[in-house]
Amino acid sequence: MQSHDINPTAAILVIGDEILSGRTKDKNIGWLAEQFSAQGIKLMEARIIADKKNIIVENVQALSKNYDLVFTSGGIGPTHDDITTDAIAAAFEVKVICHPEAERRLIAHYANTNLEFNAARKKMADIPDTASLIDNPLSAAPGYIIGNVHVLPGVPKILQAMFEGLKSKLPGGIVMTRITVRCSTGEGNIAMILADVEAHHDGVSIGSYPYMKPGHFGTAVVVSGLDFEITTMAAKMVEADVRAFGADAFIVNADGTLSGQ
Amino acid sequence: MQSHDINPTAAILVIGDEILSGRTKDKNIGWLAEQFSAQGIKLMEARIIADKKNIIVENVQALSKNYDLVFTSGGIGPTHDDITTDAIAAAFEVKVICHPEAERRLIAHYANTNLEFNAARKKMADIPDTASLIDNPLSAAPGYIIGNVHVLPGVPKILQAMFEGLKSKLPGGIVMTRITVRCSTGEGNIAMILADVEAHHDGVSIGSYPYMKPGHFGTAVVVSGLDFEITTMAAKMVEADVRAFGADAFIVNADGTLSGQ
Repeated sequence: MQSHDINPTAAILVIGDEILSGRTKDKNIGWLAEQFSAQGIKLMEARIIADKKNIIVENVQALSKNYDLVFTSGGIGPTHDDITTDAIAAAFEVKVICHPEAERRLIAHYANTNLEFNAARKKMADIPDTASLIDNPLSAAPGYIIGNVHVLPGVPKILQAMFEGLKSKLPGGIVMTRITVRCSTGEGNIAMILADVEAHHDGVSIGSYPYMKPGHFGTAVVVSGLDFEITTMAAKMVEADVRAFGADAFIVNADGTLSGQ
Repeated sequence: MQSHDINPTAAILVIGDEILSGRTKDKNIGWLAEQFSAQGIKLMEARIIADKKNIIVENVQALSKNYDLVFTSGGIGPTHDDITTDAIAAAFEVKVICHPEAERRLIAHYANTNLEFNAARKKMADIPDTASLIDNPLSAAPGYIIGNVHVLPGVPKILQAMFEGLKSKLPGGIVMTRITVRCSTGEGNIAMILADVEAHHDGVSIGSYPYMKPGHFGTAVVVSGLDFEITTMAAKMVEADVRAFGADAFIVNADGTLSGQ
């Protein structure tokens, strides 16, 4: 059983030359990925692309077609390098319009600052025709939804504030059960055990992630699946089999403590 | 002038369910992006995808065709969820072979540990036929190059150590000049200035990135281009025009100090 058979699928499209140049480190993919996991949305892929209209159009169309939900980040500010809205409109073959409610919010926002609501800032009221707004509680300039594409800004704090308001409206899914078993042995020692447990538990997938810390090393085994009972059984079998092999193994409880300690 | 007309282009493919679930935050894209910038390789896109063979094959083929260099990270360890090598071989329509030199290195490495060189670890000597090895100075298990695809592990420290040994062999390009002008005003105030300077300097692109810190906010304007003289002229014009507009503006020197202060 693949979780994306029943859970909504999603893709993230980060738009920004500054990420590709290495100048800015993306923080939105990791944050959104955690949010999606917490509400049963399955992130299928993430892409980081340049601020180029044809590239944005191509990627938006491909991801929008392949997945239930798409989230973009970046390129909806007031300057000439903010071309996401033009590209999104082109991808959906609609015009860009000045959205009256978006303009109203921006006028109200800038009236409370010492900043002029000039032509550049007015650009932030430009939205693809038929899109609906996503509220921006921090700096007024809205994001928007068109088709299955959710357009968010690149600044992490603003993206996060906007996503918080949005998330209760997103389709949810069954939240995946994910249990970590901390094993005090190299993953190469227990590879057969893990493959075997996975093969015998329908719908369960097992990932193994080596860790090295001063004084000890080992493997974090992550057992995940949509069925809580089956996933828990699989995690307990990993714990038991690794112990039978002769290494320490502990299920990590939700609060970070180790089982049986 | 687009820099990728003369500089080699690259794409990064991060392979790993643990990144898509939000459990692990990717650190390889940002690190590699900086490395590429430093030696004139133009990163065109980065993708994060699942540990699924058909998905890996599709992405490797697409990126390998579109760009000069491809770098993958993740999925070359000893466990059942490490399927990158199978997928890369399939993408290039070659067999996976046990590489004698890779095996020799692994045997030598494990002889110096208390770890058994078992079947799972022997899997790390499996390499697509015709691939050449990338040295791993930390944990022996090599990466490899096949066609224009460079296959690296997911653990950041190991990836970094392997890339350090690899980078002098990569094709270089002209290193982009990138000058930051720190402006004490909102990007919406200077949007017209930036668009105008960019339009008048061939091959120069200008990005603007708002920053907010307690007590002050402003815009980091990043002026970049392959031609040092033209890029420097453009940065100086941004500085002068923003000052003429009435805000503070300073070119940030390479050592982090501000020009003229």
